Amino acid sequence: MSGETTITVIGNLTADPELRYTTSGLAVAGFTVASTPRTFNRQTGAWDDGTTLFMRCSAWRELADHVAESLTRGTRVIVTGRLSQRDYETREGDKRTVMELTVDEIGPSLRFATAKPVKTTRTGNGTRGGSTPAANDDPWTPSTPAPSPAGAAPGGTWHGNDEPPF
Amino acid sequence: MSGETTITVIGNLTADPELRYTTSGLAVAGFTVASTPRTFNRQTGAWDDGTTLFMRCSAWRELADHVAESLTRGTRVIVTGRLSQRDYETREGDKRTVMELTVDEIGPSLRFATAKPVKTTRTGNGTRGGSTPAANDDPWTPSTPAPSPAGAAPGGTWHGNDEPPF
Amino acid sequence: MSGETTITVIGNLTADPELRYTTSGLAVAGFTVASTPRTFNRQTGAWDDGTTLFMRCSAWRELADHVAESLTRGTRVIVTGRLSQRDYETREGDKRTVMELTVDEIGPSLRFATAKPVKTTRTGNGTRGGSTPAANDDPWTPSTPAPSPAGAAPGGTWHGNDEPPF
Amino acid sequence: MSGETTITVIGNLTADPELRYTTSGLAVAGFTVASTPRTFNRQTGAWDDGTTLFMRCSAWRELADHVAESLTRGTRVIVTGRLSQRDYETREGDKRTVMELTVDEIGPSLRFATAKPVKTTRTGNGTRGGSTPAANDDPWTPSTPAPSPAGAAPGGTWHGNDEPPF
Repeated sequence: MSGETTITVIGNLTADPELRYTTSGLAVAGFTVASTPRTFNRQTGAWDDGTTLFMRCSAWRELADHVAESLTRGTRVIVTGRLSQRDYETREGDKRTVMELTVDEIGPSLRFATAKPVKTTRTGNGTRGGSTPAANDDPWTPSTPAPSPAGAAPGGTWHGNDEPPF
Repeated sequence: MSGETTITVIGNLTADPELRYTTSGLAVAGFTVASTPRTFNRQTGAWDDGTTLFMRCSAWRELADHVAESLTRGTRVIVTGRLSQRDYETREGDKRTVMELTVDEIGPSLRFATAKPVKTTRTGNGTRGGSTPAANDDPWTPSTPAPSPAGAAPGGTWHGNDEPPF
Repeated sequence: MSGETTITVIGNLTADPELRYTTSGLAVAGFTVASTPRTFNRQTGAWDDGTTLFMRCSAWRELADHVAESLTRGTRVIVTGRLSQRDYETREGDKRTVMELTVDEIGPSLRFATAKPVKTTRTGNGTRGGSTPAANDDPWTPSTPAPSPAGAAPGGTWHGNDEPPF
Repeated sequence: MSGETTITVIGNLTADPELRYTTSGLAVAGFTVASTPRTFNRQTGAWDDGTTLFMRCSAWRELADHVAESLTRGTRVIVTGRLSQRDYETREGDKRTVMELTVDEIGPSLRFATAKPVKTTRTGNGTRGGSTPAANDDPWTPSTPAPSPAGAAPGGTWHGNDEPPF
């Protein structure tokens, strides 16, 4: 890729990541990061909260599995990736556009926590190359595998291809 | 500010910048930058265009004046600033959220063009500090000065405060 | 701060972080991140390694403690912060300049690992505000506390102020 | 490329860009951007200048030509590109490492200036693809073409390949 818009966001997960699978068996973790800037108020001498930015994120393949295993609602993260735009249709047939971040790298922030990484042995998880649908007997999988297109994003239409199934 | 989400976008203006003024007299230039990544296609050996990202931008004060004077539809720019989110209501009363970039710095890209900067003598233009509403007799002003709140964003409701009047 | 040069680096720690303390008792973790880009070689169809970037990093206060507890040689991290330049003198009296990253946020990357964050209860560790020198009885402290200026960077001169003692 | 460290720097050129040519005829513009952050001093209520970051930059091919034609000492610019590290040897045979920015996009900042871009008709200038060595009769070329390796960076040794000849 060339000419992509990259972005780094610091913030907290608004909910546990949702782990789903595309019809071709690719793992995708979807989650939202809430990032709140602070402004120094010269009059009060205190920091005021600014308007929160809610960034929808998608992590793919093994990264999806690791996100689902490591992060939970409230976790402060650093996430970096590519900003893109996706058009979708509401149930009422209205067209909408959302900005999303396709995650290149993510990690729990060490600002208010410690986090010791545990290297994963690379298995067929996350289905690198899409060859093997992720196994359902994965011991830690916290969510529903291989949803049918009917299980797609609330209020939206997911067409069963390798777009994020959220 | 602290903890803001900063972003740099490269792309082309989809239209001439719109220069407007808040009711308190602050100049604001609004415009959209279209950024299209390219992917190297290993099979064809050529570069394919990716999905275009359309980033709505607002530049304020003197920067707004300089943007309106320097840039036009199609200009390739580098723009850097802070990503934020704004809620608004459509004419039908539906709530929508858009992501926007508040411009810190912008310039015409030198990739396919030359551009010799001309320093501006700092006048009351752009109304630094909001003291003086920008003069209507500005020789180069390409757009409508001091719109009433009624002249706000099509399809939206602008309440006449110092939010972007687009 | 305003107008700082921010940067996000992805890479691997070249060694365990070194945890030290300034004479005023502030914890500082110093480490180097090695970041290697890859180029797609159209002729071979494979990815070639590019030239590695070695970025010297300093994390302060509680963040320093968390870095020292969580990360080790080889850990892949995402680190974001402010790029700055520091002049120093070699033992031979030559002047040198290095670029360094002052860490704002860092975390272990989840690309090839899982990492469950554990929230820290905020104690006097890391000496927020510099009031309390970090306690030596910290159960996990892996390194030498409060070095004398003589214990400064090899080949350099550290003058005992709150500059990084590396 | 993948996994590169990208960076955006705002600052002023410390000198006019130097336009040179590699032995294979590629144009390269070398220049340094001085970027000075400001800190809000809560006690004085004023902004204090921080330590200036001096970033060495190289722009290649047509971009090099456009930089040399458009920018001069003191111009405030926005520059974005890839950070890399280069080893070189001083005249005394000492090894040094510098960080440099390979420019992807650059433009004059519109913060304190206007700048109207003029599209260039693409000629053989800048030697896209390296097919044609840049002509010496270029009407505006402000600098010495095709330096011999002896004309390389002061204090350094340039080996006449397509590394920046600065």
